Amino acid sequence: MKTDRNSLAAMAGQTLAAIADRKPLVQSITNYVSMDIAANALLAIGASPIMVRAPEESAELAPALDALVINTGTLTSTAAQQMDAAATAAHAHGKPWLLDPVGAGGLTLRNQTIIRLLRHRPAIIRGNSSEIIAVARLQGLTTDTARPRGVDSTSSSLAAEASAVTLARHALCTVVATGEIDIVTDGQTTIKLANGAPVMTRVTALGCSLSAVMGACLATAAPLQAAVSAIAIYGVCGEIAATQSRGPASFRVAFLDMLYNLKPADLQERLKLA
Amino acid sequence: MKTDRNSLAAMAGQTLAAIADRKPLVQSITNYVSMDIAANALLAIGASPIMVRAPEESAELAPALDALVINTGTLTSTAAQQMDAAATAAHAHGKPWLLDPVGAGGLTLRNQTIIRLLRHRPAIIRGNSSEIIAVARLQGLTTDTARPRGVDSTSSSLAAEASAVTLARHALCTVVATGEIDIVTDGQTTIKLANGAPVMTRVTALGCSLSAVMGACLATAAPLQAAVSAIAIYGVCGEIAATQSRGPASFRVAFLDMLYNLKPADLQERLKLA
Amino acid sequence: MKTDRNSLAAMAGQTLAAIADRKPLVQSITNYVSMDIAANALLAIGASPIMVRAPEESAELAPALDALVINTGTLTSTAAQQMDAAATAAHAHGKPWLLDPVGAGGLTLRNQTIIRLLRHRPAIIRGNSSEIIAVARLQGLTTDTARPRGVDSTSSSLAAEASAVTLARHALCTVVATGEIDIVTDGQTTIKLANGAPVMTRVTALGCSLSAVMGACLATAAPLQAAVSAIAIYGVCGEIAATQSRGPASFRVAFLDMLYNLKPADLQERLKLA
Repeated sequence: MKTDRNSLAAMAGQTLAAIADRKPLVQSITNYVSMDIAANALLAIGASPIMVRAPEESAELAPALDALVINTGTLTSTAAQQMDAAATAAHAHGKPWLLDPVGAGGLTLRNQTIIRLLRHRPAIIRGNSSEIIAVARLQGLTTDTARPRGVDSTSSSLAAEASAVTLARHALCTVVATGEIDIVTDGQTTIKLANGAPVMTRVTALGCSLSAVMGACLATAAPLQAAVSAIAIYGVCGEIAATQSRGPASFRVAFLDMLYNLKPADLQERLKLA
Repeated sequence: MKTDRNSLAAMAGQTLAAIADRKPLVQSITNYVSMDIAANALLAIGASPIMVRAPEESAELAPALDALVINTGTLTSTAAQQMDAAATAAHAHGKPWLLDPVGAGGLTLRNQTIIRLLRHRPAIIRGNSSEIIAVARLQGLTTDTARPRGVDSTSSSLAAEASAVTLARHALCTVVATGEIDIVTDGQTTIKLANGAPVMTRVTALGCSLSAVMGACLATAAPLQAAVSAIAIYGVCGEIAATQSRGPASFRVAFLDMLYNLKPADLQERLKLA
Repeated sequence: MKTDRNSLAAMAGQTLAAIADRKPLVQSITNYVSMDIAANALLAIGASPIMVRAPEESAELAPALDALVINTGTLTSTAAQQMDAAATAAHAHGKPWLLDPVGAGGLTLRNQTIIRLLRHRPAIIRGNSSEIIAVARLQGLTTDTARPRGVDSTSSSLAAEASAVTLARHALCTVVATGEIDIVTDGQTTIKLANGAPVMTRVTALGCSLSAVMGACLATAAPLQAAVSAIAIYGVCGEIAATQSRGPASFRVAFLDMLYNLKPADLQERLKLA
């Protein structure tokens, strides 16, 4: 995989076109706050969202799925069982899935659930810096004790780089730590991207919806490519939408419209490596 | 009931005015993705939404209700029990109710829940084409094996016409199959409407919110009239909003604003029969 | 506390600045309809929302919290237990919390839950007029039998004034009854504010999101000050946003943007006492 700016922009453009073409069916078990924006982001980009949660339905749906996304926000013990059933079914049918470990590090139920889910071998783990450091700590890979404040990160994403690489090697997957700089690594190749806008931290569940869209990318590309593509798409759409809005709510509208209108040329023109 | 274009537009305008006048109390048990847009659509049109789910609350609320809407998205066995209790209570108190059989056909829990709910005699069944064909198949009325892809339809609505008519006769209710052409039938009279805009398929839960608004119409008009009115209102608002927006998110904003601002004259001017 | 217009506007501006400065961590256990707008309102104003619901997580989170908000919409018996656990934990750790008794008066499960939650000593009770009268009635403080229609108020907020004052004295807390005139009282001092716009009743869960923001204020100010500040912030933002929008959906966008952009000078210029 070529990792120069132009090659990465071209690759993200191809992923965008592949989603529009194949309309992948992406199951999301996500927190209640993010269900609306996650489904709308998937539809805007041309994927087909399905929010099935019941364990018996996840098992039945898995053969038809293209990818699964699990997000541990607003967790309950019932939801943890739903997540476990969905990850089990996806893994059994060879469907790629992504783990978004919301709130990792701070709370026991969440930590236990994340440890259990990791056994089902996600293709991608996507979190903010505090969450990625916490997941690495839960796996005994770091002694960094950075903790999130609520569900918001307290670390810069660069601080998570070592944890991300170690976690990727240990879990044999791609790891993404998002922040001002977004870090994507499969343990061998590490790519740092620098698009986005500050207002993005003021829109609830925007990271959750990024995970959903990364799931759509994962349905059409290998994990490292999928992760870079989704980060590129989100960062560039965010940058353009920020110029068209006056605050977080008009930003959200402009951002989802931009996901729908994004062209490969926009990626080519604006993608920034760190 | 006169079924020429002008009479239908006038009837939809009267339903719109009746909702604004009476502010019907509409209970929605709907999927988690659609709760925000369903409640906002009901408020925009002047109805009073209530999202009570607990079985004991549904039983207590039923005497005060004007209509009930049940939508089987994001189904769990707990939610299935909530739906059963609400439909039982509505039926016992003679309150009209609408079934939106999201995802019918593909999943066992959903099919079983839908079959059970049908025993409580909905006044309207509203789904996309694949869902209407699937409900007819579940009742042994067709051997058409069209299946949805996730929760999205794979059939044109015209393909669902025969199933819709047969289902309406069998279930003694009004059936609506929405799509590029929207089909409304009570088994005797079949009306086809042709408003709307392609971007409407890119907004999550817009169909669910249509069902909620159709529930408000059902509180003030007979089922066939209610169904046609809601389809007319949604199609005309969608057409106008599409001209005012740049993508699915600005469309959603313009659409809800249009529901709030819609005048009978807009219906008279724009309603299209197929 | 000075209660003239200019002093109150200055106080609200100081609360606004304190939230931006301290970014308080506010847990919301709120109904499913309001989770998106409540979290977005908290982020817009600079607070850090967390929507933890699981009883074991609430207990673990309480020491780190700055405030808790509990809203009884879309109640189930499971949710009632989650609320009880969170209020217990907050009270045990001396964290202030706010009760938004959605639908009080009409339904048994809701009334029982509200009576139980009151034992955990909320710092603020915030509801519409019918809800405040109903809570006073549940505590045996009034024989007024006004009931809500669904979750919407049927009483003017002035009709709730006596109930609000009596309830504040009895429960030793601040009580807020919102409506065309907003009433804030701690049983000794009663303040009436008159900002806002009619379209605000057409946006679902706007009152729930007000409670969330009042929780953020409660993290940085005493209850009476917090309540007045949040009412002032919401009323002034609503008035400005109404001039910038064409219906409830564009109003919601403009309103959240305004929460993000509000300056103390806007409060100083526009705050109105009744």
